[in-house]
Amino acid sequence: MGFFSRDIKTLDDLFVHTLRDIYYAENQIAKTLPDMISKATDPQLKQGFQQHLGETNNQIARLERVFKMHGVDIGGVDCPAIDGIIEESQEIAGEAADSSVMDAALLASAQAVEHYEITRYGTLIAWAKELGRDDCARVLQENLDEEKATDKKLSQLAESWVNRRAA
Amino acid sequence: MGFFSRDIKTLDDLFVHTLRDIYYAENQIAKTLPDMISKATDPQLKQGFQQHLGETNNQIARLERVFKMHGVDIGGVDCPAIDGIIEESQEIAGEAADSSVMDAALLASAQAVEHYEITRYGTLIAWAKELGRDDCARVLQENLDEEKATDKKLSQLAESWVNRRAA
Repeated sequence: MGFFSRDIKTLDDLFVHTLRDIYYAENQIAKTLPDMISKATDPQLKQGFQQHLGETNNQIARLERVFKMHGVDIGGVDCPAIDGIIEESQEIAGEAADSSVMDAALLASAQAVEHYEITRYGTLIAWAKELGRDDCARVLQENLDEEKATDKKLSQLAESWVNRRAA
Repeated sequence: MGFFSRDIKTLDDLFVHTLRDIYYAENQIAKTLPDMISKATDPQLKQGFQQHLGETNNQIARLERVFKMHGVDIGGVDCPAIDGIIEESQEIAGEAADSSVMDAALLASAQAVEHYEITRYGTLIAWAKELGRDDCARVLQENLDEEKATDKKLSQLAESWVNRRAA
């Protein structure tokens, strides 16, 4: 939530601003995932990231629908939070010496990304409902459900073998 | 997870590094909460932040116990993720014109912080167990349980009235 925040006067302004924040975040994630896919060594993790890239592109398309439904221009605003989460992910993945340790680190970074998205979608859905935009809330809920499912899958993957291999 | 990541060779290194990441994050949160307390206008939100400041100080003390249990020096590493989340929180809170809209923004920022902590503690607990450090996992679980309870309380507060006032 970088620029334009001085324009925030109403809950509607805050809703649109946060929509722009998550739109920027999803686009940054779509740009970062190919690098994570290439760095992951475990086939299941690689495939999980690949699948999530497809989902992320669908989520971006859903956000563009929400912008249109709400009658505002499609666009992002800087989001230092996702930039920081991605920066950490890239630093750690570039440095871990052992491939299985790198997989564990990549997986943890991906979960941090998921949790950022989960909290923002949760907030956006609550605000959309308050604003009487149940139509927008329903579309955002689809993204939230996918993020929660991805986070659960990553947790299962982590607990079942990535961490065990790295230990 | 800033400096020192080139020293990460094993899951144990990754565990200690991430422990330092969340230790830095908790300390930054403890420094930021007084500002959020002073900016919040709703008494329930103000009191919620006040209570969470007390919890955060306890969580820092628990992390220091985990450092000692694991036989490593107490200390943090830069965490661009939490810095980004806090930067967003401060920007938006400094700019929102209406006090009830600011409360809604502060509450959403607090939930983003909670979710960052939830994902890191979840990861740390999984890694502690893999490393045979069930003792560390138990202490970290206490922090995770508190963060989840705080996030739930914030969601209830948001849905019950903060958003409704701001609409």
